[in-house]
This record gives sequence, C-alpha cells and structure tokens, in this order.
Amino acid sequence: MTAWTLAQRTAGMNPSALWEILKLGERPGVISLAGGLPSPHTFPIDAFSEAAEHVLRSEGHLALQYAGTDGHSGLREAVARSLPWKVDPAQVLITTGSQQALDLVAKVFVDPGSRILVEAPTYLGALHAFAPMQPRIDAVASDDDGLVVEDFVHRAGNGAERARFLYVLPNFQNPTGRTLAESRRDALVQAAAAHNIPLIEDNPYGDLWFDQPPPAPLTARNPEGCIYLGTFSKVLAPGLRLGYLVAPKAIYPKLMQAKQAADLHTSSFNQHLVAQVLQGGFLQQHIPTIRALYKRQCHAMLDALQAQMQGLGVTWTRPAGGMFLWLRLPEGMDATALLHDCVQRNVAFTPGSAFYAHDGDPRTLRLSYVTATEAQIRAAIAVIADAVRTQLTARGLQRAVAHTV
Amino acid sequence: MTAWTLAQRTAGMNPSALWEILKLGERPGVISLAGGLPSPHTFPIDAFSEAAEHVLRSEGHLALQYAGTDGHSGLREAVARSLPWKVDPAQVLITTGSQQALDLVAKVFVDPGSRILVEAPTYLGALHAFAPMQPRIDAVASDDDGLVVEDFVHRAGNGAERARFLYVLPNFQNPTGRTLAESRRDALVQAAAAHNIPLIEDNPYGDLWFDQPPPAPLTARNPEGCIYLGTFSKVLAPGLRLGYLVAPKAIYPKLMQAKQAADLHTSSFNQHLVAQVLQGGFLQQHIPTIRALYKRQCHAMLDALQAQMQGLGVTWTRPAGGMFLWLRLPEGMDATALLHDCVQRNVAFTPGSAFYAHDGDPRTLRLSYVTATEAQIRAAIAVIADAVRTQLTARGLQRAVAHTV
Repeated sequence: MTAWTLAQRTAGMNPSALWEILKLGERPGVISLAGGLPSPHTFPIDAFSEAAEHVLRSEGHLALQYAGTDGHSGLREAVARSLPWKVDPAQVLITTGSQQALDLVAKVFVDPGSRILVEAPTYLGALHAFAPMQPRIDAVASDDDGLVVEDFVHRAGNGAERARFLYVLPNFQNPTGRTLAESRRDALVQAAAAHNIPLIEDNPYGDLWFDQPPPAPLTARNPEGCIYLGTFSKVLAPGLRLGYLVAPKAIYPKLMQAKQAADLHTSSFNQHLVAQVLQGGFLQQHIPTIRALYKRQCHAMLDALQAQMQGLGVTWTRPAGGMFLWLRLPEGMDATALLHDCVQRNVAFTPGSAFYAHDGDPRTLRLSYVTATEAQIRAAIAVIADAVRTQLTARGLQRAVAHTV
Repeated sequence: MTAWTLAQRTAGMNPSALWEILKLGERPGVISLAGGLPSPHTFPIDAFSEAAEHVLRSEGHLALQYAGTDGHSGLREAVARSLPWKVDPAQVLITTGSQQALDLVAKVFVDPGSRILVEAPTYLGALHAFAPMQPRIDAVASDDDGLVVEDFVHRAGNGAERARFLYVLPNFQNPTGRTLAESRRDALVQAAAAHNIPLIEDNPYGDLWFDQPPPAPLTARNPEGCIYLGTFSKVLAPGLRLGYLVAPKAIYPKLMQAKQAADLHTSSFNQHLVAQVLQGGFLQQHIPTIRALYKRQCHAMLDALQAQMQGLGVTWTRPAGGMFLWLRLPEGMDATALLHDCVQRNVAFTPGSAFYAHDGDPRTLRLSYVTATEAQIRAAIAVIADAVRTQLTARGLQRAVAHTV
C-alpha cells in the first residue's frame, strides 16, 4: 500500500476478472472459451499490409501527426454511411475502442451517487468503465427476449433519482448471446423518451448475425434519444483500438471535450489505416466470412453441448449471432468452483457472476465460440461436461454418505 | 443544449483553446507557430514501413488481437532500459499518449475539491486532463530556473488541504521552454518527500536537447516519490498515441485498473510497431537528427526575434532544447489582441494566458519553432514584430490624441 492520499473512487478500483481471464488465456496449452477474443483467422493481414504501405507512402506525414479530437473525416463519413439511419458525420466521434466511449459517457452523465441502469447480466467492462465515476448501479431484468421493458419503467426513477442513462446491448448480448426482440424495441425507445432517459446503445456484435440481421437499432428509431456505440474490433481487429460513438448534436461537444482531455485523439495512423482498408467496400466481402466461421463454431458448440450435457440438468442460450452463449448449471452448483476444476484440465471459461452489478447468479457461465477451433470447442465442452458430472457425482456420493452415516 | 441531466463536472468541460489552435493550423496558407506539432520531416517513414510489414507478417495475429492492459512486454523492457535509473519493466504502464497518463493520475489522486499543484504557467492539456476530476488547482511560481521550490513548500498544505500531487515539467517546459535548474532538483525532491506529496514528472521533451542533456530527472533522484511520464510522440511520431508512465509498485495497480476501465489497453499494433522500430538502437541514430533540426530552427527564431523586435520592449526565453519559447509583450499589450491581428495576416501563435490555471499573464505568448521551416519562422516573426509595432504606434497615436484633446 502507498502512503499517498488517493481519490475515494480508487477503493472501488480493484483487479478485474476480465484481466485475470485475459492472462489465463495466454497460458500455453489452455483452451480458453473465456475471453471475448475474435478469431485471429479473421484478421485481414493482407489488407492491413497494403493499407499500411499506402498510408505511410502517400499520407504518412498526416497519418503520423497529431490530429483533431473528433477523428479522421474520411473515417467519420464511412461510419455515417454504414449506419441504417440518417447520420451526419459531425455526430460521429472516433474513440479508442468502444471501451473509451463508455468512459466518456460515464464522465459526461455520472456524478458520485447518480443512479444508472444496466441489464442483468451486462458487459463486465462497462461496469468497470462506469465505476470510477461512482454511480449507484441498478440492474434491469432480462429474459430470453432481452431486457424487460416493464422493469425498466419500474426502475426509471424521478427527479434526482431519475436514472442518468440505460446502458443496453440489444444484439447478441455480451454475456448472454440474447437479442432484444423487435416487439420490445419500440416500446423501450418510447419508454426512455417518456422518462427523458438517454439510451446508451452498445452494438459491437450486430454485424455478426448467422442467418438474418437483427432488428433495427434503438438509435435508428429515435436518434435524438440515444447515444450509439460501435467498433471495428469485431469486424476488423481489436488490436487497433478503434471504435466510435454517434451522439445527438446537443451532447456531442461534451463527449468530445471529455475525449480531448482523456487522450487528445485516437491514433491517427490507425484511423487512416482503417479508412484505407474500408475503401471499395472491403467489409461487404469480409464480414460474411466472419459470420460463416462463427456460425460454424457456434453450431459446433451447440452440437457438443447437446451431445455431452445429456441428463445433467444444464441449460443454455441459442444465439442467432455474436460471440457468446450462456449456460446455467443445475441448482446448487457454482460456476467458479467448476472453473477451478476445469482450469486443472486446461479449459477456461468465465463464471457468469462477474457480469452482474449485484447478486450475480452463481450457476451461470459464459462460453465464447469464436477464439477456439471446432475441434478445441468439442474437446473443451467434453471437459466441462465431465467436470459437471464429476461434481454432481461427488455431491450424490456426499448425499449418499450423509444418508448412511 | 440537451434536456438530459449531465454530471456537474461537465460545467467545466468547455471548448479548448488547444482544439481551436489545432483547427487554426490546418487552414491552408497559415504559418502556425501555435501548435506543438513535431516537424513531420522527422517522422521515420521508412522505419515504420519496414516495421509494419514485419509485424503484420511475423506476428500479425498477436499485434491485431486484444492484449494485456499493462502493455507489450518487449516495449516495456525497452522503456525500462532507456531510463537513467533502475526501472523494473513491471513498473512501466504503456498509455495512449502521455495525455492518457494525466487522465489516469487525476482519476487515482483527485477527489472533487482536492488541492493539486501545477507550475505557473503549465501544459494546457494537463489542466484539461485534471479538470474532469474537479480539483482545486493551485499554481506554484516559476522563474528562469523553473519552479520555485520555496513557493512549492509554501503551498504544500497539511491534512485534508495537503496537495494530492505536484505536476511538473522539468525539461524545456511547455509552454516556457525553461529547464528546472540542477540546484533546485534535489531540493524539490526532498521537499516533496518531506511533505509526502507525489511528484508527477512529465518529460516529453527531455531527449530534445541542443548542446547538452538536461540534469537527471526528479524520478531518478527518488523513484518511490515520483510518477514519471514519457512519450514516443516527440522522438518518433505523435499520431501513434504511444506514451508510458513509470510508477512505484505500490500505486501501479490503481493506475493500471484506471487504464483498463478507460480503454482496455493501448493499440497492440502500435506497440508492436514501435517495439520493432526500436530494435537495433534506432533512436540513438534518429534523435540526434531531430535535435539538430530543432536547434537550427530555434536559432533561426532567436536570430529573427533579435533582428525584428529591436526596441519594442519584448522579452523572450532562450531554450536549451525542446519545442517552444515564451515571449512577453510590453506593458499594456495583450497577446490575444495581437493574435487577432496576426491571424488576419496568416500567422498564428498561442496566447500565454491559456497556460495558467488562474490569473493568466495577458502579455505572454508561446511560439513553437519545430513545425514551420526556417524561412517560415523568419516570415512569421517579421509579421508578429510588425503587428506589435503597429499596435504600439496606434497606442502612441491614441495617447497623442488623448493628450491633444
């Protein structure tokens, strides 16, 4: 411990499970279904290589220089064009990954003690991003059709207790893989507008659908009521740390000023690089290859679960896209204890309790089907099923022993 | 204005002079001495091009993937080796430019209303980075030898009023170009330790000396009493947004957790790229070329000032390195009014008042000698001198008129 006086917020800033997971996945020999790491086979190395050479040779003096906080104009225009509602490029702020957008949103909306709303469960990194601004986090219930709108209305609050925002991942949600049903989207947008609560719509996975695109974004239904977060991490490469937000013009300057204070601007080299890669409609050819790969790997996981988890009382979601599915263990089991056994056998996943603001369900866990190969997925699911079986058997034996004693 | 409820801190987050300056410098035809933009002639395009190809071909799957928050191990080792005191790579945190390090320091040390200390004047971007955490900023006097240690002691404070940190730029300071004298460095380090106040030592320009290196860093004198900030922006290229901090091990985890919440990690591609460029001692050959260029351009500016400002009552600093010098206009003149006239004639600089936390001296202004060429510097100084002369003459006429009326 340090003898220096630290800010009170640091009491809530502690080692993150996400970090431990990233470290765990790096250990040689481990099959990790834990991280949210896109398959490196999808990284378009050739396209980056050509673009890097082009950018350095033709605009290197600009791409390596300081730049405006709002971002590279060509990239902002490409983002605006790619979205399915009318977006002025002046509403697009390029961010250092969409993680940074969460930090900026927290800075602009959250005073110490402000109420904010998230889904239960939600993206772990969002909980970490919001925490330094010291909100009181309230969790809105969700089911197989996503967030429950009635529960949002119930928790909206009034006056000083009115929630500063609702953070929501409508498509192939992290961690559950669930999608917010079409029937709930208009209802949510209307309810949020009626309560004057901004929707922070995070859509990292929307392009990664298997058979059909998800329903239109919340922001497309009421652009003035939402801040939309997107990223190139899942369709190009996360190592570039390149995301964006789209905000109503009235709030944009505050978000931009928060960004300028945070890192001046996002790497101009990476912005030029991606603007170059995007030329000629690259993503229209590239994204379908990612969809096909992830669909195949998701089906491999679903098939393996079907085959291996027979009769164990385990349930799971069936995602229509994205990167994750969500398991629930039988009553009385604990995913963290299960992880402990699995890691001994070189398989990792993420216990679900980390994804709840409060009262995490200890029986849940998150599996990623995008980083490991199909063969690895089958091997890993067999190990997890065997560990479940072993724990159930041990419990059965304990019960039997307890009965005989 | 938005109808949403914003955090109170947003009241202090307003359009930045720095931003306006960056925009101004982009207007075609303007000779800007305003920004702190390194000369693009110093960007090692060939080295980046070779490194990009190598990184993508040999480690692309790693360089484009998510990575640990602390940073690329090879880069952290290179940073540790480059510093003139014993640094464990585990103390090095790679940041998204050193601007991000300022955001992290503010998050970890500042509660709303906490006192912090800066130099008068100081780096404008630091004032912006600290502002969202709502400190009370107190300014320590400085003179030609840098920060005045007695005034630091005077303002250190006790108990709840004790300053959470002192932010200091000892070498070729932004905006003044001044260097903290050797005789004051040990005194400052001892005084800070005695008052248990961390020194946040920002050293972006230390490598850019003209004739001899500056005295040893504050951190080298008491590593446990300081957090050291460095950057590749001035010795390679700012567009990569690649900086670092070195912190005592007791405080490092809090800074790392703040960083993880802010953007997960700095672009792994850019980290691999720079680690590759650094191999084989590249900077040892490259930095001397930057020093030689900036020394030449600084001397061109000093010669032009000497020639053009004769008899105008203007004074200026004579930097021994770095990127900036600092002018003071004669009594009664205002640098912002002067800028207004100069911009009409396509010359820009930064009024000095922006660099003060309080009570900016309106007579001061900052000139950068690194972005413009020698010929442009001579032309710009002639314009500024002429604008000073015109304003002095107008004032003289006004006085004459006032006398005759």
